[in-house]
Amino acid sequence: MSEIQNVGIRGIEIYFPHRCLEMVALAEADGVPAGKYTAGLGQTRMAFCGDREDIISISLTVVKRLMEKCNIDPKDIGRLEVGTETIIDHSKSVKSSLMQLFTENPFIEGCDQINACYGGTNALFNALDWCRLHGGLAIVVAADIALYGEKNARPTGGAGAVAILVGPNAPIVMEGTRVAFSENVYDFYKPHLSEEYPVVDGHFSLQCYLRSLDACYTRFCAQNGHLVGASPITAASFDYFVFHSPYNKMVQKAFSRLFYLDRQRLRGTEHGPAVHPTLAPFDDMPLQETFTSKTLQEAATAVAAPFYATKVTPSTRLPTHTGNSYTASIYHSLASLLENAVGGPAALLGKRIVFSYGSGSCAAMWMMRVRAPIDRLTSGLHIEDQIRAQQCTLRHLHAATQPPTRLSFISRRPNFSNSETSPSAEKRLNRSENGVTPPALASCLPIAPPG
Amino acid sequence: MSEIQNVGIRGIEIYFPHRCLEMVALAEADGVPAGKYTAGLGQTRMAFCGDREDIISISLTVVKRLMEKCNIDPKDIGRLEVGTETIIDHSKSVKSSLMQLFTENPFIEGCDQINACYGGTNALFNALDWCRLHGGLAIVVAADIALYGEKNARPTGGAGAVAILVGPNAPIVMEGTRVAFSENVYDFYKPHLSEEYPVVDGHFSLQCYLRSLDACYTRFCAQNGHLVGASPITAASFDYFVFHSPYNKMVQKAFSRLFYLDRQRLRGTEHGPAVHPTLAPFDDMPLQETFTSKTLQEAATAVAAPFYATKVTPSTRLPTHTGNSYTASIYHSLASLLENAVGGPAALLGKRIVFSYGSGSCAAMWMMRVRAPIDRLTSGLHIEDQIRAQQCTLRHLHAATQPPTRLSFISRRPNFSNSETSPSAEKRLNRSENGVTPPALASCLPIAPPG
Repeated sequence: MSEIQNVGIRGIEIYFPHRCLEMVALAEADGVPAGKYTAGLGQTRMAFCGDREDIISISLTVVKRLMEKCNIDPKDIGRLEVGTETIIDHSKSVKSSLMQLFTENPFIEGCDQINACYGGTNALFNALDWCRLHGGLAIVVAADIALYGEKNARPTGGAGAVAILVGPNAPIVMEGTRVAFSENVYDFYKPHLSEEYPVVDGHFSLQCYLRSLDACYTRFCAQNGHLVGASPITAASFDYFVFHSPYNKMVQKAFSRLFYLDRQRLRGTEHGPAVHPTLAPFDDMPLQETFTSKTLQEAATAVAAPFYATKVTPSTRLPTHTGNSYTASIYHSLASLLENAVGGPAALLGKRIVFSYGSGSCAAMWMMRVRAPIDRLTSGLHIEDQIRAQQCTLRHLHAATQPPTRLSFISRRPNFSNSETSPSAEKRLNRSENGVTPPALASCLPIAPPG
Repeated sequence: MSEIQNVGIRGIEIYFPHRCLEMVALAEADGVPAGKYTAGLGQTRMAFCGDREDIISISLTVVKRLMEKCNIDPKDIGRLEVGTETIIDHSKSVKSSLMQLFTENPFIEGCDQINACYGGTNALFNALDWCRLHGGLAIVVAADIALYGEKNARPTGGAGAVAILVGPNAPIVMEGTRVAFSENVYDFYKPHLSEEYPVVDGHFSLQCYLRSLDACYTRFCAQNGHLVGASPITAASFDYFVFHSPYNKMVQKAFSRLFYLDRQRLRGTEHGPAVHPTLAPFDDMPLQETFTSKTLQEAATAVAAPFYATKVTPSTRLPTHTGNSYTASIYHSLASLLENAVGGPAALLGKRIVFSYGSGSCAAMWMMRVRAPIDRLTSGLHIEDQIRAQQCTLRHLHAATQPPTRLSFISRRPNFSNSETSPSAEKRLNRSENGVTPPALASCLPIAPPG
């Protein structure tokens, strides 16, 4: 069988719940300075679901919209995979629930992909490999609802979904060798099976993210340097970066880390002295210290600053306004870049894009190339419109009540609510029996009318 | 990139807990006739775990043994995926826990694959595609611990794990086009997140299995007929069958169903009158009735009977003695076939093997070909030795006690117990905090010394 060429991203659709919390208002409600959540986390807003939406309904909505937008005939889909860590059943996959959209074509491979925020990337890799070998079109879904039980972590919640159409003759293709890194670490995990909240060791998780970034970036440069064309390769050699974004400050730290890594990698070579000499004082800092050193962080941020606005900011628009959507986060970042790249989507043509992703711990880094105009791909995203239409409120549904949300309240109506996905919703147990606990913020926020 | 040839199964290792329940003894304890569990379900024994084993430890054990047996250098592995529905964490994958075996090579892609009993098959497909495109070796793990809360369903529990080495120049390769079938059905699911037990609609689940089989077999014959060589193609055209085995009676029903399907598919053709004429009385039976009709079942079983012993029985040895191991079940069946094929493993050389699999609802059917001697692949399985060494007991650990199991009691010692997989086990919450509920049989079985 001959391999199919130019397999990549042919379409992308995003969805996030319309309601959100303003970080400033949340800080006020929490009795902390606003800067703790804005400058401190780098976040602006955080999307959240009401009781009428769940992981199934937001996944159905985003897939339905992708199919309409891309005019997909369900019969052309051969693989469908879902990355998520919002688990409402220990056996039945979200993928199988999505099959209600494909009753005329049940011959679709795939299932759910699970490892914290990484599942969507595994789904994408599987879909790309499958298309290259078997032909046809694949759909990749990444969707999550991120809730935290600890008050300190609550501002890093969020919600969102993305659906990606993968197939041949795509305007965005993978290039070079993708690299992966995986460790057995307990930085963020969810051992309490009857609740939605993770156990998080925040400081350790930051280190795990950066350690994965170190490993991926070093290996990536070694394996793909010849494709980048610059000598020496540094972070400045790449046009755009997309990072998994648990909160924007993490993205800032990750980007500045690359400049430290460039110096470490190159300082023994002929290029050494010229590479970021202001970072020379940190050349011999023990590795473990580099993860926590504030002086290094400040120095690296200063080196990275001239590049951040053009190379990173375009991808941060959605994640800073929807919060952490776990598996969907990196693809919300990608969608943002496609719509917001300096000079408009047309400017991306022919430019190289580096993707980076780190989590739980599975991580990967790869490069994508825009090889054809992406106007059709981005025209229906309307990210700025959707951000403008976000409905900011401090009202969060109270745990003990029956679902009070009027469907009209979920404006920019999703295509599905969890009470409409019959027979799925009827067959699923109700949320309390289901072990799905109340929204995380219920106890700390005033109940008020939609604002 | 050129596609890598003859990618397939290069090694296979199985593991199951040493302790088991005899179906006859269990029936006696349950106060039902022994035949209900033996002839009725087609089962002989059922393996179960003690408190010292869990999904992580049995997965670690089977991978460690595969690596030793196949003399695998961890540095050669590029992808590792786990299919399971035994979820003890909603975020962290079993795959990431297995990375403790690969500390010298953390550059390994993959994560967990979830959809009831199907995840292992998705993992295998991913690994095959990955190897064909990217080279290197992959490991596929399928492992589960099947427990049922309802007394009636308990005899269909079980436990087991399998690890498969996938790579180039393999003695067993895939041939032809694999087919898939997926539906949004609620026949078996696990919405009670704080317990291990599924919600099962047994009669409906049987129909979903058969409906998936119908769809896969019909499509498979249409797409791969030219490879089989027989005209017309019927179930008799294939040498061996491997079915997902929730219990052996299901396998018997599935096999006999193929003969009914052959007649349905061919009766309008020139071959029609000659194809299983004893099934003619059911030609016009409404489809829904065919799933439940006892007379059809009896007639189809009679047609299938001459073929069952040679084509199916060789693959049923392990599943009838370990019970349902969910994702691992079909690969325990495969391992059984490899060791038990009539004439020994050498007899499989060049013969075609059809695999079939149905579940939750994702299903797939594909064909494998043994293209080189598999002696090295099968030599370390020792399935018969392991069955002989099963320790039958009615003793099941009592829920309320601290883990009382001496490691020496887990004979044919696993490489890992859950108290040894430090730091994983320490980091995980203890079983009760963890939401992992006590063993299913604790309440119905007498506590007695190991038998």
